[in-house]
Amino acid sequence: MTESLINTPYVQQLIGKVAGVEQSGGNQRLKQIVARLTTDMFRIVEDFDVTPTEFWTAVSYISRLGQANEVGLLVPGLGIEHFLDLLMDEKERQAGLAGGTPRTIEGPLYIANAPLAKGEARLDQDPEQGEVLFMQGQVKDVDGKPIAGAIVDVWHANTKGGYSHFDPSQSAYNLRRRIETDAEGRYRFRSILPSGYGCPPDGPTQQLLAGLGRHGRRPAHIHFFVEAPGCRKLTTQINIAGDEYLHDDFAFATRDGLIPDVVRHDDPAEIKAHGLNEPFVTIQFDFTLNREAAHLPEAVVVREHAKAA
Amino acid sequence: MTESLINTPYVQQLIGKVAGVEQSGGNQRLKQIVARLTTDMFRIVEDFDVTPTEFWTAVSYISRLGQANEVGLLVPGLGIEHFLDLLMDEKERQAGLAGGTPRTIEGPLYIANAPLAKGEARLDQDPEQGEVLFMQGQVKDVDGKPIAGAIVDVWHANTKGGYSHFDPSQSAYNLRRRIETDAEGRYRFRSILPSGYGCPPDGPTQQLLAGLGRHGRRPAHIHFFVEAPGCRKLTTQINIAGDEYLHDDFAFATRDGLIPDVVRHDDPAEIKAHGLNEPFVTIQFDFTLNREAAHLPEAVVVREHAKAA
Repeated sequence: MTESLINTPYVQQLIGKVAGVEQSGGNQRLKQIVARLTTDMFRIVEDFDVTPTEFWTAVSYISRLGQANEVGLLVPGLGIEHFLDLLMDEKERQAGLAGGTPRTIEGPLYIANAPLAKGEARLDQDPEQGEVLFMQGQVKDVDGKPIAGAIVDVWHANTKGGYSHFDPSQSAYNLRRRIETDAEGRYRFRSILPSGYGCPPDGPTQQLLAGLGRHGRRPAHIHFFVEAPGCRKLTTQINIAGDEYLHDDFAFATRDGLIPDVVRHDDPAEIKAHGLNEPFVTIQFDFTLNREAAHLPEAVVVREHAKAA
Repeated sequence: MTESLINTPYVQQLIGKVAGVEQSGGNQRLKQIVARLTTDMFRIVEDFDVTPTEFWTAVSYISRLGQANEVGLLVPGLGIEHFLDLLMDEKERQAGLAGGTPRTIEGPLYIANAPLAKGEARLDQDPEQGEVLFMQGQVKDVDGKPIAGAIVDVWHANTKGGYSHFDPSQSAYNLRRRIETDAEGRYRFRSILPSGYGCPPDGPTQQLLAGLGRHGRRPAHIHFFVEAPGCRKLTTQINIAGDEYLHDDFAFATRDGLIPDVVRHDDPAEIKAHGLNEPFVTIQFDFTLNREAAHLPEAVVVREHAKAA
């Protein structure tokens, strides 16, 4: 192809029709974005000389991706969810914000309305063997002042890498809780140490990753939303140090400042004092929330979630 | 946003990781296209200052699009299916091809293996009232020589705009046939005149079109694949002249040379001679196939189709 078809008046007019540029109704912002998307897609087809067969393979792929409910899984794998975090960081930085706990991606597996506990909770409710984890810390503002009544909404995978609701072998809200911080801003919970996991091996996300020579593994991690009145909502994760994929997450979620020490306790007296028979681990992690202000970009993301039955 | 994040070394490295550039496995072409797609998506997010909430709205939209099985319906609505035709036309023109019947989009409603008839067929098999259509013509090569044994694979909607297989009220292969041309290259069929139709009113395609101020209507048309040994496969449609949306097809499929005259016959003697009680219409349309040659871009498109039960 020596000359671009896209710059011809006919194709420019086609793109205008696609985006409804001359239609009185509709949403102007949507029209602008669709015109750009359409132009970009046309350019990719032309620049790479994409054949119709290749194109329809991509169309089938997107159909399967939607049908497998994996769009929200591929998106972090394409780095866009992380890129959204980078953009928000940059906007906050330009607005003069600094000092909060780093944000990182939410991922597709949150379920709202987990049981609410005051100060402390036990997350593991299914009879599963796993290394016992005690995690605790404080929620503070950027001046280091503890925040009482903050909500720490925590969710994580089990030892097989499965999440309750999405993994039918687990009971409702297993490994999911909301914990309200106490008067000193403290939260603590008992759970089992999660495992890392991979994308469904036969699913379309893994299929694309394989085509790129990539794996679809995530290192072990624990998700959090942390909210308090007057503060910016924090969406983040901590990683479990030592995981093989700690710095090779297919979803690009690992960030400095989110890898607390995992302390192993095997002293028999200590084990007994915790009412356990086996060694256990502890994690200490404080969350620091930025103060909300009207000029800041919206930190509360409205996003569809699977609904608990 | 004063400076682009995309050009930072960190984001350039991220895009490289996304596309698996440094991975030894995988497909090099896929890597290049994914790197480009990722960059384009990042740029759209940055240039339009797409908010996370807007972004996740788009992700949910793509999920619903796949789940409603409407990716193949939106694609023509975004003009890309037509753009693929324009690219193929241009490549053929550059290769010196001229004189064939214009191609136009296949659309998402083809079903393979319709009943095969010799020379003529009746397409309407369900007890539906509709204006009787007799359509006929010849399949020829670019020198005007009739092609015996060509296959005219025809499919169209009923008077309510529905297609058999996708519309459960119709019997299998209603309004779908393959007709083998006779010794003079002739095909003919009896059917009922199809109606135009719109995208499913509650579906995601119509939702996006509405957001662009656009309608989702297609003018009445009849689809064809025409194939013969030694010739390039033709994918095309004819439009029924007089339709309100004839030159305002949401799928951009209407093309010059594909709008034959529809002749109405109301002479009682002629009606009786055709074994009918009501006026009927006739369409005369010849198909001209280009000769196949090794240096031409592939005309046979491999595309997933719904399968007949």
